[in-house]
Amino acid sequence: MSENQSLSLNPNVSVDCVVFGFDLSGLKVLLIERENPDNTDGKNYQLPGDLIRNDENLDEAAKRILKELTALDNLFLSQFAAFGDPSRVKRENDLEWLRSVRKDPEARVVTVGYFSLIKPENFKPAANSFARKAEWMSIDIVPELAFDHNLILQNGMEALKLKMRTEPVGFELLPEKFTLGQLQNLYETVMGFEIDKRNFRRKITGMDFLKALDEKQQGVAHKPARLYEFNQSAYNHSFSPMFDFQ
Amino acid sequence: MSENQSLSLNPNVSVDCVVFGFDLSGLKVLLIERENPDNTDGKNYQLPGDLIRNDENLDEAAKRILKELTALDNLFLSQFAAFGDPSRVKRENDLEWLRSVRKDPEARVVTVGYFSLIKPENFKPAANSFARKAEWMSIDIVPELAFDHNLILQNGMEALKLKMRTEPVGFELLPEKFTLGQLQNLYETVMGFEIDKRNFRRKITGMDFLKALDEKQQGVAHKPARLYEFNQSAYNHSFSPMFDFQ
Repeated sequence: MSENQSLSLNPNVSVDCVVFGFDLSGLKVLLIERENPDNTDGKNYQLPGDLIRNDENLDEAAKRILKELTALDNLFLSQFAAFGDPSRVKRENDLEWLRSVRKDPEARVVTVGYFSLIKPENFKPAANSFARKAEWMSIDIVPELAFDHNLILQNGMEALKLKMRTEPVGFELLPEKFTLGQLQNLYETVMGFEIDKRNFRRKITGMDFLKALDEKQQGVAHKPARLYEFNQSAYNHSFSPMFDFQ
Repeated sequence: MSENQSLSLNPNVSVDCVVFGFDLSGLKVLLIERENPDNTDGKNYQLPGDLIRNDENLDEAAKRILKELTALDNLFLSQFAAFGDPSRVKRENDLEWLRSVRKDPEARVVTVGYFSLIKPENFKPAANSFARKAEWMSIDIVPELAFDHNLILQNGMEALKLKMRTEPVGFELLPEKFTLGQLQNLYETVMGFEIDKRNFRRKITGMDFLKALDEKQQGVAHKPARLYEFNQSAYNHSFSPMFDFQ
């Protein structure tokens, strides 16, 4: 491969990033709005994504593109699926925009989806490159997105839920010392259903990587609850814990 | 896209299939051996895979390519990951072979992995196209494969294990009526570790989609064991059962 080729964009492969943000107000997703002056139907929101370069692997591409479009850096992105419907970039509204930014706007593009779950307060997006806005949007009010990005978002949600059930993700979204109520709220928000409180407590307190502290909440109006912390080292030594709350 | 373009192969995207076979002798994987007369180092075993066509989606490509190379048809293939290391098709041995079969042998190729779990006795492979052999190989003796196919196989194993822990796969690999010993053997073979018998029975009999029958094994030398069957309808009504045996 020539130097020139290796620095070029691959016309047939892209990545798209589904960045979820969790805070006390609920679950959000990071969207960008693209410039598309000719378009009047308003479907210009999309997930941050673009073609990969020929000299980078998929993880590197996801990291670079997210940073270029939204200025977000240093977050953990997990690949979850590839999307390859032959018509996924063929909608007229999308083609119009592609003609304004791509060398080969008619090319078949297979995209690889990545997701991440972060605390929005720690990551302030700033739009750049072809994004004119980059913003957190509540998951409940996401509009019709460009390309097949609603499908990618939906699959990203499923991937996040599976990960929440099979790996201890999400602890970094809570304060270092947290109550079981806060932990339950995180799980309910991401899983999208209420969890029986007794079941939740029975399961979660049986996990030896969750450490009950000799401390209680301070400065709360209600009866203060016991505080817990996550013990990564105990987790590393436990075998495939599962979070199945029903 | 012109008619001609839409029937052409995409130079940058392929699929590779990791087909696992389970029977009483253990876990196997389906490999093909490619023709590569100039090559003497013997690394010509690979997973069945090839470039996608521009008019098909990824699932269709996986199904078509598996059938073309091995004659296997009508099996359920699940996508599990995309592999995009820029050097994944750049090994000299692989390039040699690519030059003999591909229009653009130097092209960057991102591949999408699919896996399946079947009963080998029901699927007799027959080599075709560029495969000169298609055969089941025990997972323990898989040699160094072409491209990054050892990595894809390893990731396919992880995907299979995750699926075994989170979904009721594998029941179709057992007789319609099976003993808990047979079920445990299936799980131990795929998961790759021994499961405590008491833990296994306690968990598995608590699942209401597993139905204990009023029947026992017949014609066995040892004490006949009770037979069970899988109840798909009860499963469909249960919520996210997990198979966490430790």
